[in-house]
Amino acid sequence: MPELRRDPILGRWIIIAQERGKRPTDFLIEEFKVKGGFCPLCPGNEKTTPDEVLVYGREWGYPNTPGWKVRVVPNKYPALIIEGSLDKQGEGLYDRMNGIGAHEVIIESPNHQDRFSHLPPHDMVLTFRAFRDRIRDLSKDNRFNYVVVFKNFGKAAGASLEHSHSQLVALPILPRMVTSELDGSLSYFKYKDRCVFCDIIRQETQQKVRLVCENSLFVTLAPFAPRSPFEMWIMPRYHNSSYIDQDDGSLMALAEIFSETLRRLDACIPNVPYNFVLHTQPLRSGSLEHYHWHFEIVPKLTSIAGFEWGTGFYINPMPPEETCRYLREVTL
Amino acid sequence: MPELRRDPILGRWIIIAQERGKRPTDFLIEEFKVKGGFCPLCPGNEKTTPDEVLVYGREWGYPNTPGWKVRVVPNKYPALIIEGSLDKQGEGLYDRMNGIGAHEVIIESPNHQDRFSHLPPHDMVLTFRAFRDRIRDLSKDNRFNYVVVFKNFGKAAGASLEHSHSQLVALPILPRMVTSELDGSLSYFKYKDRCVFCDIIRQETQQKVRLVCENSLFVTLAPFAPRSPFEMWIMPRYHNSSYIDQDDGSLMALAEIFSETLRRLDACIPNVPYNFVLHTQPLRSGSLEHYHWHFEIVPKLTSIAGFEWGTGFYINPMPPEETCRYLREVTL
Repeated sequence: MPELRRDPILGRWIIIAQERGKRPTDFLIEEFKVKGGFCPLCPGNEKTTPDEVLVYGREWGYPNTPGWKVRVVPNKYPALIIEGSLDKQGEGLYDRMNGIGAHEVIIESPNHQDRFSHLPPHDMVLTFRAFRDRIRDLSKDNRFNYVVVFKNFGKAAGASLEHSHSQLVALPILPRMVTSELDGSLSYFKYKDRCVFCDIIRQETQQKVRLVCENSLFVTLAPFAPRSPFEMWIMPRYHNSSYIDQDDGSLMALAEIFSETLRRLDACIPNVPYNFVLHTQPLRSGSLEHYHWHFEIVPKLTSIAGFEWGTGFYINPMPPEETCRYLREVTL
Repeated sequence: MPELRRDPILGRWIIIAQERGKRPTDFLIEEFKVKGGFCPLCPGNEKTTPDEVLVYGREWGYPNTPGWKVRVVPNKYPALIIEGSLDKQGEGLYDRMNGIGAHEVIIESPNHQDRFSHLPPHDMVLTFRAFRDRIRDLSKDNRFNYVVVFKNFGKAAGASLEHSHSQLVALPILPRMVTSELDGSLSYFKYKDRCVFCDIIRQETQQKVRLVCENSLFVTLAPFAPRSPFEMWIMPRYHNSSYIDQDDGSLMALAEIFSETLRRLDACIPNVPYNFVLHTQPLRSGSLEHYHWHFEIVPKLTSIAGFEWGTGFYINPMPPEETCRYLREVTL
């Protein structure tokens, strides 16, 4: 019997229409091959990118030279541009403004062959520090209200460069994902006087049927109403609405659970393409009692995107309790 | 300069980041080849589908035999099933119910080679009548609250069968697309005491920069804040919230403008894959002053789906004023 499930934050309903006997290995994944060729993100080619805005690991030497471990540069083909004013205007009943924003690339390792999921936590943590430090820096620009941080891994998930990287986009407006989550979690808070994410963590760590892994500061869950098989959320165990308030110790614990989570995913479905997106409070909101920062990792496994993003209505062929069992039981 | 634009109904912001000199022919489209082989939707193979629930054009003869022009059958592999009760339940803070619903396939022509966009309007209209008549019939089942009607054309847009067809899914709940549109258009109505869609039609038919084509009863627009290049909305010129109230004459005018719209699209970008989705009022809402039924046609031209459906934030490389110019000026 298929099942309809409601996401408790967004109110989004999804259909779990289980295909009998389907196993993770039945998802068809393209082989991941490193093709090589000229790479603008490799050490030695620093002059081919815009000037770096942040670098970790280069103890001495000039900017835009090798020796770094993580390097952040503006996107050479940005979707938004940094110079100018917003110049908000109406056009009859419509609203528009200039496309002011920042679009940056976080190069996660100097080695072209490295994959993010295979980086040791003490290297991976540098990327999480770069996210934090770039958001902190961009928040000083009062034209911006939100910074979207995301990673596309694999061609099917939208990656166009091979070299391991993630991206951020600073925006003058709040994306719908953020306003919908804030609205949904606020209405739960008004009703229950509790954070819905804290309640989810409490229920999941008790029931343990959708708990993938945990450490002292973080948990990884398969959400109750996932859009895709093997969707996972990584959440801080204790209430906190702001990613940029995390200290280096907390980010180290994040890197440890993130590494374990991605290795579990990769062990279940080798080379699976995925997107992850950081969900955190808006730059100007202050701490929020009803909101809880987290990462959402969504593998790209189902192809019926067109209809689904047209209706906000997802069909998922594998229940999260089952994907979670695979993820927990896999040998790392 | 890139531009940020806000959809006046949903409040969704999109980025228009124009790639200079990009032309419709620069979008890479797979060749459309009819492969043939056994087709369960072809005449003669009626026994291989579940029993038909509606048929047009068969003047005499038994059910599930050739002679039809349009035929509607339950999906052999349905996402939801028709028998049973909803059995709504909580599980801690979560909500679930049985996956009760209908999932049907509308076979738009008996000829395997036919394409929907190439059907003459007097044949195409049968599909629009089938949509209406099936929604009317399904609305008698009081377990259902909404019927999603959609078409996937081309593999990239999610079509798995070659033979021209569309689909419908009857649901016990309202999909997010519907609740968001209802909420957005209601808050406009509360503020202005006018239907936002009527205001859009008024502005667009005056300005004519995003007007693709029109007839006495319908208009086709490129929306102000499109998710994809060449996105188009087909809307009734006069206020009406309910698709199923349309008479045969009105559906004939719909088929005429739909045919012209798809032929213009196909002339600009031959074989472009697309999805269309019918947006209409919920089954139990009664007529709505603030809502206006319409079709949204979204070509599948950009690949960055993963990030975009994660954030609700779209980057569009071609402004609608430009796509509209191509669509208007093309030779049919």
